[in-house]
Amino acid sequence: MNYRVVFHTVGQILKVESILLLLPLAIAIVKEENTVFAFCVTIVITAALAAAFTLLPVRKKQTFAREGLLIVAFSWIIMSIIGALPMYLGTHARSYLDCLFETVSGFTTTGASVVDNVEILPKSINFWRCFTHWIGGMGILVFVLALVSGNDNNSMHILKAEVPGPITGKLVAKTKVNSRILYAIYIVLTLIEALLLKLGGNSLFDSVTIAFSTAGTGGFCSYNASIGAYHSLYTEIVCIVFMLLFSLNFNIFYLIVVRQTKRALKSEELRTFFAIVFLSFLVIVFNIRRLYPTFGESSRNALFWISSIISTTGFTTVDVNEWPKLSQHILLALMFFGGCAGSTAGGLKISRVIIIAKNAKRSLKKIIYPSSVTTVKVDGESLSDETVYGVTTFVTIYLMIFIASFLIVSADGNDLTKSFSAVASCINNVGPTLGGLTTFSSYSPLSKVVFILDMLIGRLEIYPIIVLFLFSTWKKPIRH
Amino acid sequence: MNYRVVFHTVGQILKVESILLLLPLAIAIVKEENTVFAFCVTIVITAALAAAFTLLPVRKKQTFAREGLLIVAFSWIIMSIIGALPMYLGTHARSYLDCLFETVSGFTTTGASVVDNVEILPKSINFWRCFTHWIGGMGILVFVLALVSGNDNNSMHILKAEVPGPITGKLVAKTKVNSRILYAIYIVLTLIEALLLKLGGNSLFDSVTIAFSTAGTGGFCSYNASIGAYHSLYTEIVCIVFMLLFSLNFNIFYLIVVRQTKRALKSEELRTFFAIVFLSFLVIVFNIRRLYPTFGESSRNALFWISSIISTTGFTTVDVNEWPKLSQHILLALMFFGGCAGSTAGGLKISRVIIIAKNAKRSLKKIIYPSSVTTVKVDGESLSDETVYGVTTFVTIYLMIFIASFLIVSADGNDLTKSFSAVASCINNVGPTLGGLTTFSSYSPLSKVVFILDMLIGRLEIYPIIVLFLFSTWKKPIRH
Repeated sequence: MNYRVVFHTVGQILKVESILLLLPLAIAIVKEENTVFAFCVTIVITAALAAAFTLLPVRKKQTFAREGLLIVAFSWIIMSIIGALPMYLGTHARSYLDCLFETVSGFTTTGASVVDNVEILPKSINFWRCFTHWIGGMGILVFVLALVSGNDNNSMHILKAEVPGPITGKLVAKTKVNSRILYAIYIVLTLIEALLLKLGGNSLFDSVTIAFSTAGTGGFCSYNASIGAYHSLYTEIVCIVFMLLFSLNFNIFYLIVVRQTKRALKSEELRTFFAIVFLSFLVIVFNIRRLYPTFGESSRNALFWISSIISTTGFTTVDVNEWPKLSQHILLALMFFGGCAGSTAGGLKISRVIIIAKNAKRSLKKIIYPSSVTTVKVDGESLSDETVYGVTTFVTIYLMIFIASFLIVSADGNDLTKSFSAVASCINNVGPTLGGLTTFSSYSPLSKVVFILDMLIGRLEIYPIIVLFLFSTWKKPIRH
Repeated sequence: MNYRVVFHTVGQILKVESILLLLPLAIAIVKEENTVFAFCVTIVITAALAAAFTLLPVRKKQTFAREGLLIVAFSWIIMSIIGALPMYLGTHARSYLDCLFETVSGFTTTGASVVDNVEILPKSINFWRCFTHWIGGMGILVFVLALVSGNDNNSMHILKAEVPGPITGKLVAKTKVNSRILYAIYIVLTLIEALLLKLGGNSLFDSVTIAFSTAGTGGFCSYNASIGAYHSLYTEIVCIVFMLLFSLNFNIFYLIVVRQTKRALKSEELRTFFAIVFLSFLVIVFNIRRLYPTFGESSRNALFWISSIISTTGFTTVDVNEWPKLSQHILLALMFFGGCAGSTAGGLKISRVIIIAKNAKRSLKKIIYPSSVTTVKVDGESLSDETVYGVTTFVTIYLMIFIASFLIVSADGNDLTKSFSAVASCINNVGPTLGGLTTFSSYSPLSKVVFILDMLIGRLEIYPIIVLFLFSTWKKPIRH
């Protein structure tokens, strides 16, 4: 194990985090909030740790998958441990665990909250909550690589571990250049959304924080009623459009930028994504029709919730617990689908759903015609069996983690609706749950730990977090 | 497609069914019930159809996987359509669909009922309900093969489709001989259970029907309160022992009969099965402790329910809806586990759970050490990748069917607990559900159709039923 590379990279991440923390500090100073001290202390600690971690020189630059996974896991965990400090030191939080939950929920772009009343939080803390979404959405490691990276081989391992989806697209092949392109697209889209929200009459603070939350497909908001607090059709439409945009594979935007729009629009994942959105809309809009005075009103609410859930953002407007069960259960299913691979969204990802469905079709065909030889094709290209079975294996591991989490969380005594949707919401990085609990504050510390792990497992797509718990990771490999 | 073989075999099945129907007819005659006419009509229709189906001579005996699957699917569907007639003609059933639901639930050994009060049903009908469990448990095709089979190659295709589990054990290699051994074990165990129940003071009718229901891991009972109606520790213990026995791989009994007990006890599936039972027992017995006066009482109820659910029998005693959610949710998870492969139990089967877990472990190891080459081993033997990925693919298809069924059933407006557990109960051939609905009578006709398909899909392990709906099954293969 090349520990030095691991420490060094984590140190660089902390360096970046200490710089990013200056932004909420600035807000605390401008608003004259008593969180100034909390942010200052956090920044000092972060900078000191960063210095300590990068002190040891890296001898060999070479890394393997193992190091890549550990770098990602440690970075996200330490980032969250540090990121929880301002809230712990600067607000009347019940416990450090609650602050850690909130921060992990932020970085993993989940948006599940343990704060029952976010409106009494200092502005700087609410800004930091939404900002963590934005940082976590794109992946902080990708960001660091965009700035510093020297060794492109190392970067591939990290990218593979941090960027969601079963297939690492060709876009990320040349890491350094492309992670810059990805970030440029990310920043431009965020700016456009913030601008549109400002033009709609929202305050600058609200426009920026909502844009951060949407871009990361996170879901934190400075109001308890979330986007519902604005009572604004315009704001909702902007959110719908950008929630959907941020759940698309960023390769699509890249292709549009380099004027290959036709190729971009041919993407099966893109088409399937919109087909699922459209089908869900068709069912829900009629299913909830009698609850709202006009068809327009029911369309607005249906589309907002569908976009919010499939993009795994988790902004809310009307109370879906009043909807017919069918609509609620469709939303629950959408949580698992999630957005496209290579987006900031969570969930299994549409590309995995496509591969699973096509593999199922192939296996059925093989049962009828045992001698038939077919491959699973996506966008006209055959996938290797390794990729396909990697996906089916991924799904079974996902399921096992889901069931284990669900059983542990059930010990809190909540019914199936609450326990099941809470785990689904965390592991798919969505945020809201069904059954009436609007926040996670009432769960036991053990359940909160499970939720924290689930959020990390969901965001980092299982492996980096599980690898931490495996004996063989820490064992010296046997030389043959 | 060799339609003649399909028709001919289905005809043979109907011939057997018409003979089996003589048993409930005899009971109807003895008890002087007005179902005599219903059974007579059914027997005449069945015999006539059997004669018609076997009229056409079979030219080529050769069959392929496709014919095997179709034979199984058609046999089970026609058996159920016919089997529903006595109830439809002889009782005041609400609809033919309800009778079909009840009969499919019987043959698939699910035990889910649409009859709100079974105690007013004629004895002959209650006998038939439990008898369908016994017939369906072992697989009627295996039975027919044990009697008639000429071509062992044909039989393999059918056996593969009808006997549950991912790996067809060596026992079934020589079909004709071995299906007789399997049936002999089945009959002897059923007789022992019936005898023990009779010795415990139960009536002959009750002893036989309970033994039938247990042997098929079905769950129908002549009392609304199921086994709880007996208020007898002895009866419950006999049921617990035999529910567990009937969820073991029948190869185990075969090995014990041929004095290879040591080898039988080494089976990983057997050990895992009891480990899961033991662990669930440990958690539930303490979780429900405060609900019952003594530790013995809570042990009795915990063990009964665990055995009933993991064996997918579905007998009930106390009301689990009063139990803490953790215990309820463990039972729900056990539904999916199910019994061992090659037993009469439903669910995914323990051997699949083992393969999934080992494949997960392997894939994690491969991520840490990409160059490591390992296979999944069960009972010391390496499984081919084809088998392993067959299992992961199976699980993903299972999941897709589950989600689709769950969404359709949700349209009835039942909450997550009811809808989810109802689908889980049907697809895993269990019977009882959570959330307070003791029967399926209140579901819509559409939901009942979905449940019927789910029960068949669960019992026949997906493929035969799905193949019916595939276009390519009915398409002429292109000759190259």
